[in-house]
Amino acid sequence: AYAGRNSVVVTVSHHGNTPETVASAGKAREIGAASITLTFDEGSPLTEFGDHVIVYEWGADSDFGNSNGVLAMKLAVEILQRTEGYAGYEGFLSSCSMVDRVIKTARKNTIAAAEQFAKDYKDEPVIYVLGSGTGFSAAYSFSVCILMEMQWIHSSPIHSGEFFHGPFEITDPKVPFILLKSSGRTRVLDERVLKFLGTYGKKYIILDSTELGLPEIGSEYSEYFDHIFFTAVLRQYAEKLAETRDHPLSLRRYMWKVEY
Amino acid sequence: AYAGRNSVVVTVSHHGNTPETVASAGKAREIGAASITLTFDEGSPLTEFGDHVIVYEWGADSDFGNSNGVLAMKLAVEILQRTEGYAGYEGFLSSCSMVDRVIKTARKNTIAAAEQFAKDYKDEPVIYVLGSGTGFSAAYSFSVCILMEMQWIHSSPIHSGEFFHGPFEITDPKVPFILLKSSGRTRVLDERVLKFLGTYGKKYIILDSTELGLPEIGSEYSEYFDHIFFTAVLRQYAEKLAETRDHPLSLRRYMWKVEY
Repeated sequence: AYAGRNSVVVTVSHHGNTPETVASAGKAREIGAASITLTFDEGSPLTEFGDHVIVYEWGADSDFGNSNGVLAMKLAVEILQRTEGYAGYEGFLSSCSMVDRVIKTARKNTIAAAEQFAKDYKDEPVIYVLGSGTGFSAAYSFSVCILMEMQWIHSSPIHSGEFFHGPFEITDPKVPFILLKSSGRTRVLDERVLKFLGTYGKKYIILDSTELGLPEIGSEYSEYFDHIFFTAVLRQYAEKLAETRDHPLSLRRYMWKVEY
Repeated sequence: AYAGRNSVVVTVSHHGNTPETVASAGKAREIGAASITLTFDEGSPLTEFGDHVIVYEWGADSDFGNSNGVLAMKLAVEILQRTEGYAGYEGFLSSCSMVDRVIKTARKNTIAAAEQFAKDYKDEPVIYVLGSGTGFSAAYSFSVCILMEMQWIHSSPIHSGEFFHGPFEITDPKVPFILLKSSGRTRVLDERVLKFLGTYGKKYIILDSTELGLPEIGSEYSEYFDHIFFTAVLRQYAEKLAETRDHPLSLRRYMWKVEY
């Protein structure tokens, strides 16, 4: 009802075969909207319904500058630039070209920390993940898609700005947290959480995108890349955890196996 | 930066003394915006900065038609009606006048279920809360403000529409869930969750606002009231749980007690 001939409809599906997503792209075509599809799989059903098909790279060896997150942002920025102009256009593109190097350096520099995390947290029944800004998306997906889905560990994502609205009452030296410290305007929220965890908690780790070098891509743009940065770095934490727990990331009980 | 003389700034604080909220209302006045404040406490600092002060009722014996949720929606509907008109205006107001009776009836009819819940769930280390539509807000606040904050029980709110995106992998007969089954357009999402829990879960309770009579206020408006309905009904579940666990809802470790 909200989309028509003057709309741009963007659909995203990793394997390009989620029925609802494919149907949406088909519908977009039907109503005469511009259909842009993002997928990892070049020949997948979703691509049939894209006027423009964006194929992203995925995995440890790929170019993070061509990841789904970066290409989706480039698309948004391109639309913005062509419609009303964006003063940060050149700077943003320059950041995009640096993000791969910065992420790969951060991944190298956190391998030991990821191994230590896996050793220290392998038997925890519950692990909370805190973040803010775009970093909250990384906290959300690590909590929901890595810990709960792939490791069957109880978890909740908590926005740093909501921590003191209630969740902080479960803090004690035994409750484990992962805090993603963002590099942008919401960093102050993460700092407030850290101060509290430092006083009343004990079992927590911090991933600080500023200390890990993200602002090298240009400090005025780094906050837009926090989620991409954290997701790429956290992937190693997931892999080490899976290894240490002898619970492969590919293991599922229900997903793709039963009807739901 | 986004507000000016043509803005309406609405601020809400239960006790009317949250420093950031009071400061925002002050700022609204300063820039010449219309300042509307909602609070439970008629004489609180927040009210000093309201051009219009809305005092809501709170607690089991109060009129749910004068609760914060209903009055906030009435405010939004009134603004909508006066600016561009709202075809559902009369019907919505009529729903507001019926909501107190419907909620009180539902509370009476769920006392036994709340007691049973308290008995069955009192020793659970983690309880998930699922919901959709406006009902998701009730799932969120029950998880964050009742279970985590007031009972120190591990929890996460999960949107029914996100369950199959990952969280459903932690389902097994021992993992406890509360499912809030909404009365509106998102009900289909809750039904899909319920079907799955019925097959692979065992320890779950359902609060169904349709079965509990919410649509009596007018089925086309009931989905707007799901969060108010569920919050009011769940309050009894919280009280019974606190009683059974001998852990008062007023007990805090940090909130209002230490600096943070």
